[in-house]
Amino acid sequence: MPTTPTGSPAGPGQQGTHLTHGAHPHVVPRHPRLDPLADRYAARTHGMKTSEIRALFSVVSRPEVVSLAGGMPAVTALPLDAVGSMIGDLVSGMGAQTLQYGSGQGDPRLRERICDVMALEGIRDASASEVVVTVGSQQALDLVTRVFVDPGDVILAEAPSYVGALGVFQSAQARVRHIAMDDDGLIPEALEQALVECRANGDRVKFLYTVPNFHNPAGVTLTETRREAVMAIAERHDLLIIEDNPYGLLGFDHEPMRALRARDSQRVIYLGSFSKTFSPGLRVGWVLAPLAVREKLVLATEAQVLCPPSLTQYAVARYLDTQPWREQIKLFSELYRERRDACLESLDAMMPAGTTWTRPDGGFYVWLKLPHGLDAKRMQPRAVNALVAYVPGIGFYADGSGREYMRLSYCYPEPDQIREGVRRLARVVEAELDLHSTFDAVDTGTFRAVGRRASGHDAETIVGPANSNAYEDGRA
Amino acid sequence: MPTTPTGSPAGPGQQGTHLTHGAHPHVVPRHPRLDPLADRYAARTHGMKTSEIRALFSVVSRPEVVSLAGGMPAVTALPLDAVGSMIGDLVSGMGAQTLQYGSGQGDPRLRERICDVMALEGIRDASASEVVVTVGSQQALDLVTRVFVDPGDVILAEAPSYVGALGVFQSAQARVRHIAMDDDGLIPEALEQALVECRANGDRVKFLYTVPNFHNPAGVTLTETRREAVMAIAERHDLLIIEDNPYGLLGFDHEPMRALRARDSQRVIYLGSFSKTFSPGLRVGWVLAPLAVREKLVLATEAQVLCPPSLTQYAVARYLDTQPWREQIKLFSELYRERRDACLESLDAMMPAGTTWTRPDGGFYVWLKLPHGLDAKRMQPRAVNALVAYVPGIGFYADGSGREYMRLSYCYPEPDQIREGVRRLARVVEAELDLHSTFDAVDTGTFRAVGRRASGHDAETIVGPANSNAYEDGRA
Ligand SMILES: Cc1ncc(COP(=O)(O)O)c(C=O)c1O
Ligand SMILES: Cc1ncc(COP(=O)(O)O)c(C=O)c1O
Repeated sequence: MPTTPTGSPAGPGQQGTHLTHGAHPHVVPRHPRLDPLADRYAARTHGMKTSEIRALFSVVSRPEVVSLAGGMPAVTALPLDAVGSMIGDLVSGMGAQTLQYGSGQGDPRLRERICDVMALEGIRDASASEVVVTVGSQQALDLVTRVFVDPGDVILAEAPSYVGALGVFQSAQARVRHIAMDDDGLIPEALEQALVECRANGDRVKFLYTVPNFHNPAGVTLTETRREAVMAIAERHDLLIIEDNPYGLLGFDHEPMRALRARDSQRVIYLGSFSKTFSPGLRVGWVLAPLAVREKLVLATEAQVLCPPSLTQYAVARYLDTQPWREQIKLFSELYRERRDACLESLDAMMPAGTTWTRPDGGFYVWLKLPHGLDAKRMQPRAVNALVAYVPGIGFYADGSGREYMRLSYCYPEPDQIREGVRRLARVVEAELDLHSTFDAVDTGTFRAVGRRASGHDAETIVGPANSNAYEDGRA
Repeated sequence: MPTTPTGSPAGPGQQGTHLTHGAHPHVVPRHPRLDPLADRYAARTHGMKTSEIRALFSVVSRPEVVSLAGGMPAVTALPLDAVGSMIGDLVSGMGAQTLQYGSGQGDPRLRERICDVMALEGIRDASASEVVVTVGSQQALDLVTRVFVDPGDVILAEAPSYVGALGVFQSAQARVRHIAMDDDGLIPEALEQALVECRANGDRVKFLYTVPNFHNPAGVTLTETRREAVMAIAERHDLLIIEDNPYGLLGFDHEPMRALRARDSQRVIYLGSFSKTFSPGLRVGWVLAPLAVREKLVLATEAQVLCPPSLTQYAVARYLDTQPWREQIKLFSELYRERRDACLESLDAMMPAGTTWTRPDGGFYVWLKLPHGLDAKRMQPRAVNALVAYVPGIGFYADGSGREYMRLSYCYPEPDQIREGVRRLARVVEAELDLHSTFDAVDTGTFRAVGRRASGHDAETIVGPANSNAYEDGRA
């Protein structure tokens, strides 16, 4: 039973929230026997738990804390006046549409524009009829999982994986098998080995869930060679791939890479989002899927929400029609690049030996590995005392591993705050090292070490509802 | 397998849509073997089907057709300029909040205001911490079902029931047992009998789903005496009640009735919506639940959508703060009352003997029973030829009954259109009677007849995934 109060401003699984209002304090029954309905809940609720990230919020929202925890985009970099009057006009001028129910599949005009956006990543054969608009790409992921996954089915997912995806898989009572990654992304050999072993075990593998670009939380990107290798494996093993790509257009150094979906329109279901390129508060995402799947997704979304909000869909479509959205994405990328630089430079300058981290060339996140023997989860209260917050790595694994990792987000704080945050964090790590007297155990590994460890360790483990509470212990 | 193309403008399960854009035509594979993924879908998808209502859309959106089919509110009766500038200001002035991620539970200020709204129906002990904001009350219903229902569990629901609820229950692989209604709403004796029988059968009854006010589709309201009787039965049988109440404030004749939730805060989970009192295009609904349930609902909604859209929540909160929303609801009620009158008056004047219907004193719907021997589903193509549309009753039952019924919505067309629509419909019914030469089989029953029939007939039937396709045959 989750015991963390959430009446306090609570944020979405994956996200930092910036809340200014208070909420009623309250007490959640701490023991199932105090809940008269305790014996009536569905089986799928048993593993549901408050995310590591949500547990941090009351702390992180204190202004004196530098938060490297949340994944909030820098929305104030948008032309707010222009967007405001654009949306106001939509309501005054088109209220009969923007305030009314719409189609379950989503506004046809928006779906056309979404095809234009995907073309930037090499997807040129998509038609608006294959697109379903969703309430953020989170809902897209939930719908796809609902349509494909029965309890006990196996989902392959990178180690680590987006925490919000793990929540969806958990609630579908799926078993997650992690696939090792390194600095070049998902390791194709580990994927193939997993598929062979699953077949041997008689596991029903429903799909591979992957974030190929600027991975959350790992910060790495799947290389071109690996993309080809992964597609070849998918072909060989008749594997369905869910390509989750909210960050693909936010690269710092080169043009967007060619999506997996651009290589195979039948075998890849693509999830996109306007949360990072425009605004997450509108909750507009989408899924691109073969027509037969699309049909099922529409039925599933109608049962779930009837239709996505009309106003927010019209707002995005109008934004894409009338505002310089490509330039805005460039501007966002510049801003995040500056913050990434501030983060990496201070890590280079200040982190004690034995600490390693990834070097993202896009997106929001750095994935940091602590010196041998340190535990990011256990260190967290001391970090908060030192007025810096991060997300412990453990939440990004379905199997309780990842204690030596943390995710640092550089997307939201200003560069100076980032530098100050990293300075504080470095001091905490040093103090921790002193405490543990583990100066001898310096680890010079890179992220590649995760891959090796994971492919050795995780390869035997499939994590399902039965043991997915493993990482719930010791919440601060 | 649903074979109805939905690339054409498609609407939410329950709703009419008013779409002006075209969409790509396409062909859905008509046979599972043509879908390479056919053997991979989750079990819950097998019973998913295009709703009766959605199947009507391409027809209904033709301007020459009078549609008594959709349930779209009359949003153009809103002060669109004021609402537009209010929303524009929210974005320009508070973009950092309205365009950003928010709390999974929903904006605390909006939750406070929702408590004020519920107080109008006698719910005075609700606290904002017990409210979860949802993407329409449809999502609220889906979340509650996710939290409570395992495949095979039984849900009690009125006969007939809101088609969108049946879709949710179907996708949860629940079995629906219908409870008879009459002009006074749900029949308490039928409820108690069902509970006794379910207990005898060892069925796990998870909850009663009921729409006590201005029922969709039946148009009837649960009387005060019956409310007390239902609560007493719930107490006796330890029954959880889901009270779905989107229309409660839209009464024509008297003050809102006291909600079931106002009588028991632990045993009733209340679902509310701004779709009918303000705007459905914003998709803002809510659920009010005891804290332990609330906690699970928040986890479930985080897995589903992360958080509801911030912009639409701020829009509703600001609307409640700054606009004369109570007066607007009065205005809506006046408008719907006029349309109800137009509908009932023309039915009285024009329908052939043997046709009966309910007389709603609020909400959107009239439930009409055809003369003996006629079938609303089979009559539909002829009605469409005569340029009038309705929803066949069959979609509102999980067990394939209801062929003699239809739902007429008077909420959207102007009074004159309604009169013209009913005139056309009366002619179709007359022609049908001629055709069938069944003048002898005049049925003088009122809606009460449904109740009797249902309590005799449906009482033995629990409808589950196995036979819920029963009413799918013969789609026009
Ligand atoms: C990898 C990934 N997928 C999906 C999401 C969900 O984004 P949204 O629902 O806002 O589109 C996020 C958000 O952080 C993410 O990082
Ligand atoms: C009885 C009932 N419940 C729920 C809904 C869903 O409404 P919304 O999701 O727009 O709040 C409707 C819509 O018509 C309804 O009639």
